[in-house]
Amino acid sequence: MGLDNSYKLLLNRKWNTGKNNLITDVPGVLVGHTTIKDEKRKINTGVTAILPHGRNLFQEKVMAGVSIINGFGKSVGLMQIEELGTIETPIIMTNTLSTGTALNALVKYMLEQNKDIGISTGTVNCVITECNDARLNDIRGLYVTESDVINAVKNASVTFEEGDVGSGTGMCCLGLKGGIGSASRVIPIDGKDYTIGSIVMSNFGSSGNLILGGDKIGKRIEKVENTNKDQGSIIIIIATDIPLSERQLKRIAKRSTISLGRVGSYLGNGSGDIAIAFTTANNLMHYSNKNIIDIKMFYDDNIDCAFEATVEAVEESIISSLLHAKSTTSGFKIKSIKSLSEYL
Amino acid sequence: MGLDNSYKLLLNRKWNTGKNNLITDVPGVLVGHTTIKDEKRKINTGVTAILPHGRNLFQEKVMAGVSIINGFGKSVGLMQIEELGTIETPIIMTNTLSTGTALNALVKYMLEQNKDIGISTGTVNCVITECNDARLNDIRGLYVTESDVINAVKNASVTFEEGDVGSGTGMCCLGLKGGIGSASRVIPIDGKDYTIGSIVMSNFGSSGNLILGGDKIGKRIEKVENTNKDQGSIIIIIATDIPLSERQLKRIAKRSTISLGRVGSYLGNGSGDIAIAFTTANNLMHYSNKNIIDIKMFYDDNIDCAFEATVEAVEESIISSLLHAKSTTSGFKIKSIKSLSEYL
Amino acid sequence: MGLDNSYKLLLNRKWNTGKNNLITDVPGVLVGHTTIKDEKRKINTGVTAILPHGRNLFQEKVMAGVSIINGFGKSVGLMQIEELGTIETPIIMTNTLSTGTALNALVKYMLEQNKDIGISTGTVNCVITECNDARLNDIRGLYVTESDVINAVKNASVTFEEGDVGSGTGMCCLGLKGGIGSASRVIPIDGKDYTIGSIVMSNFGSSGNLILGGDKIGKRIEKVENTNKDQGSIIIIIATDIPLSERQLKRIAKRSTISLGRVGSYLGNGSGDIAIAFTTANNLMHYSNKNIIDIKMFYDDNIDCAFEATVEAVEESIISSLLHAKSTTSGFKIKSIKSLSEYL
Amino acid sequence: MGLDNSYKLLLNRKWNTGKNNLITDVPGVLVGHTTIKDEKRKINTGVTAILPHGRNLFQEKVMAGVSIINGFGKSVGLMQIEELGTIETPIIMTNTLSTGTALNALVKYMLEQNKDIGISTGTVNCVITECNDARLNDIRGLYVTESDVINAVKNASVTFEEGDVGSGTGMCCLGLKGGIGSASRVIPIDGKDYTIGSIVMSNFGSSGNLILGGDKIGKRIEKVENTNKDQGSIIIIIATDIPLSERQLKRIAKRSTISLGRVGSYLGNGSGDIAIAFTTANNLMHYSNKNIIDIKMFYDDNIDCAFEATVEAVEESIISSLLHAKSTTSGFKIKSIKSLSEYL
Repeated sequence: MGLDNSYKLLLNRKWNTGKNNLITDVPGVLVGHTTIKDEKRKINTGVTAILPHGRNLFQEKVMAGVSIINGFGKSVGLMQIEELGTIETPIIMTNTLSTGTALNALVKYMLEQNKDIGISTGTVNCVITECNDARLNDIRGLYVTESDVINAVKNASVTFEEGDVGSGTGMCCLGLKGGIGSASRVIPIDGKDYTIGSIVMSNFGSSGNLILGGDKIGKRIEKVENTNKDQGSIIIIIATDIPLSERQLKRIAKRSTISLGRVGSYLGNGSGDIAIAFTTANNLMHYSNKNIIDIKMFYDDNIDCAFEATVEAVEESIISSLLHAKSTTSGFKIKSIKSLSEYL
Repeated sequence: MGLDNSYKLLLNRKWNTGKNNLITDVPGVLVGHTTIKDEKRKINTGVTAILPHGRNLFQEKVMAGVSIINGFGKSVGLMQIEELGTIETPIIMTNTLSTGTALNALVKYMLEQNKDIGISTGTVNCVITECNDARLNDIRGLYVTESDVINAVKNASVTFEEGDVGSGTGMCCLGLKGGIGSASRVIPIDGKDYTIGSIVMSNFGSSGNLILGGDKIGKRIEKVENTNKDQGSIIIIIATDIPLSERQLKRIAKRSTISLGRVGSYLGNGSGDIAIAFTTANNLMHYSNKNIIDIKMFYDDNIDCAFEATVEAVEESIISSLLHAKSTTSGFKIKSIKSLSEYL
Repeated sequence: MGLDNSYKLLLNRKWNTGKNNLITDVPGVLVGHTTIKDEKRKINTGVTAILPHGRNLFQEKVMAGVSIINGFGKSVGLMQIEELGTIETPIIMTNTLSTGTALNALVKYMLEQNKDIGISTGTVNCVITECNDARLNDIRGLYVTESDVINAVKNASVTFEEGDVGSGTGMCCLGLKGGIGSASRVIPIDGKDYTIGSIVMSNFGSSGNLILGGDKIGKRIEKVENTNKDQGSIIIIIATDIPLSERQLKRIAKRSTISLGRVGSYLGNGSGDIAIAFTTANNLMHYSNKNIIDIKMFYDDNIDCAFEATVEAVEESIISSLLHAKSTTSGFKIKSIKSLSEYL
Repeated sequence: MGLDNSYKLLLNRKWNTGKNNLITDVPGVLVGHTTIKDEKRKINTGVTAILPHGRNLFQEKVMAGVSIINGFGKSVGLMQIEELGTIETPIIMTNTLSTGTALNALVKYMLEQNKDIGISTGTVNCVITECNDARLNDIRGLYVTESDVINAVKNASVTFEEGDVGSGTGMCCLGLKGGIGSASRVIPIDGKDYTIGSIVMSNFGSSGNLILGGDKIGKRIEKVENTNKDQGSIIIIIATDIPLSERQLKRIAKRSTISLGRVGSYLGNGSGDIAIAFTTANNLMHYSNKNIIDIKMFYDDNIDCAFEATVEAVEESIISSLLHAKSTTSGFKIKSIKSLSEYL
């Protein structure tokens, strides 16, 4: 469940939320987690998988766009999204040093699912995103395994938990426990309801900077680090069933920068801030027997509703990640960190 | 004079403001205006010129970077800044349909000043920026003349007015009278004080959306248009004497997106949001008798202070443009529009 | 008429040329020139206009993409093509210092044609491209007038001249007389013939570097300047009736870099090398009463034919500009320059 | 050894080659290979490592720029080079599906070498590049191991082999056996000699398209595949000791597009064409006790020599990869493929 209604007044809600106020309100989208925790060994990490649809993604790609808000990050697979405008695998979120393991796992998963890859067709572009959870997790231990990654993909469903779960397990954000958050908005277009949903892995910002619906609550949060740096990164995934072109999806992704500003980020040097947007409405088949394909796009002149709903959903996703995460006392570099709810 | 202290509590001021709280607190930077008004003929437009230094800019270029936040705009000269990392003319701000006139004026001014252009050396890259002031100005009348442009350049000085002056004369922003605003911040680096200053021409946003230091004051502002679109554009110029590379200046320029979010923008489709950042610390001579040149850059790992000061200065510049602008009742498409101060 | 068949063996012609071997083989595309010459006053300049179609371009925009191959250039209007993926005016080519005049002329032309601009709708993004013809033209004289620009637009037709005409009048390329060149290719797709055409304004390269179909003929060309610099710039416009998305048009535009390499460019520092590609197959109306619009795109996996045909057409356009230009003895900085035909 | 002198007349050699005509002519640069071959199991793959210098790269980063010529590729780590302008690990080349293994290996290598990563400092951006060797290699078998990767790094030295070695083992190019090729050029600047070197992993193009010094030799090469697609990709690494800024290195990297055109590429859809350029002259320390750092850049107005030398070195590197590779009869999808030397 997304953020409940008690913070309604604080946050922007010009549009209604979707049924569950989650990215999976966009029909077809699925999310799965693998949470990896071991208090003694200071392991707090995991994997989250976002599936644009539950069918074979390589054979039926979704149209996508990327905004590299701040490129101090190690995500894998973004360049090809930019060139071809498509996503052809699940999107994996994990910790920074486990991207290789996630990539290996996803390659094997895709090979298993698609016997043509590397034989009668080309290779596959796996999308792996990451944040650095070294504050709460012994990241050098490389504790994520390939089966952890596959399990997150296989667990994917319409309902999923937020907070300190999956790849969000070891994340910190704005001096608080961060993690996974999600939200959605419903927009009526030409007499039909469409949905924009987002999911974030929040791990950015410094202690004093949290803004909650305009309230500079960060100033009341006790410092957990001797730094004012906006560190850590955020991964933002936006899904919609509005038919948008690759160019328009890139524009949607870029609007999440505004959400970051609204909650207290100033796009710190060390924060790899990445947004990916996809639509489920313009799927492209890997094999086509005709060269000219019908797709749909949006009349740009009226696209502001989608922009504003994106800004709302991403802002609420970040706040939701903070509200769902629980305080912990078993961190690695930082021993303990509080949840936002302790300050409310 | 920049924004005075009464709004101090509302705005972020982690760093001290410069002496005048203006972009011209960066040593050498000059700003000049030509204001063009004729109540009867519904003319409310003008020109503002920003000079990175008062010497010959073509012969002694300043290093610069650009961030195209939303490219629905008609600015001239940005491509070459991106390629070469330099600015070699004054930066002109004017209304959208007068960019040709401003370009002609600036070309002639540069030819006059530099007898080598087109003879013994190449041509010149003039930087013209614009917003659409058609709500208050009969923009189709093309009332800006070439001498108006030259006068703004020649008027340029350390002190200058804010609000509904120069190119800001006909601008509207977030449902209020917009225009020119400026602010500055001082950052101590390695034991020495450096300055980051900014100036904006504010013409973006829709009536309900203004946020002032977290307060969603926009909801209390009466609607002046039958649209919720975030229209109009903003031009943001950032100056500093911190030695930054072209890459770093581009990063600085990008951070102003955060400021836009803080005051209520969601980067509307029709809003050409452009930021240009330059430093006065790495000037590059047009003619050089050596090929390898010494410059200075900033240690990226500590650049967050400059990022955060930029976000503060640009946010305050926008608010300052609103606070200095005066209500008007002689508009064109919109007959009258109020100033922010009427709501405070 | 495009390049005739005598050079067939030298150049790549995997695909057939269109009927006239010109960009106007793409149905609807029109080209017009204004040639400005005055031997005594050393005036050799002009204007060329490319119209994606002959109807109202503002009301019925064409989909487009841009590749900034080398951004040392002063073209106007490219940023908005990048953001919105559309062209909404004729494309003007002229000399570098006349871009302001061309912009003013085009603004007025568009205002005249569209009474809604600046009143009931926004402004207009005029596309002006340029090369520096200062070697043969007294460019500081600013001899292009607004009516010269309008005349080029009004003259536009399916047949047009190549060589030292229009904006190509004063251009030099690879140590030879350059100018306007055009070519086209026909590609069968899904049982129907489509056309890719291009037009260039050639003004780049240094004397020794011309390659003609693999033959390094440049070594036999006498030097006209005391420099080996690849100076001057090239503007490349590519038209097609293949339905391509904005992303795909950007990819098409980028392929012209290969053509530049084939004829001897190495993308010199001072050469503003710009390519714009548009399709006539996905026109977008300025006003739309529905938000979701049907368009067509190409199956990327089979797009290589369009890429290769583009490379061929642009290479042949450049060579065609050299073959059609005539030797001149009335230059400005360079007194006389020979045509390629004198070396064949 | 780079390409010997017998092809001198065919190729562009405006500048002298370096001592060994290899990328390692740039002082400090090292290259190592691991070749993985098993005729029976159709394994033809490997790893090549390029070390910008032999010291600790994380602690002493080199300045770098990237050009994504065609982004249909799966390279890892390019985004952060773009944002920060630095490389902080060896650059690995391998096959497409082994990027995860290479990434894991390099992460572990960097952790071993730098005890501060993930403890007292952030993480590390590993650079992994790839081409698809599935034509000659059973790529689905994932035969590259982490020790193969580490061995390539440890083997790195000033002398290294070209052709079907290291990551080039299974590569095909323009219908011939491809692989690793390298070349260098020496440029005198301000009275001192500087070097530009390049190394490529060549795996692009279609059979008929090879151009050798202007000669369309490809037409005489027998077809090995039933396709005209320009498939496969190329990775281009350019090193220099000329002091260049990040922006200038990006420009250098982009010039390699010209070299691709010269040898017969048209930047096919499926060809992931990536160029990375670094300089050894502006190293940036991971830890710095001062914030303002002295670096050197090049006077852009005279940079054409570096651009042209880059075009030459990369063109020769590609041809050198073809000339050094040996014919093979133990391929996977393609049973046998000839070397270029069989046609000369």
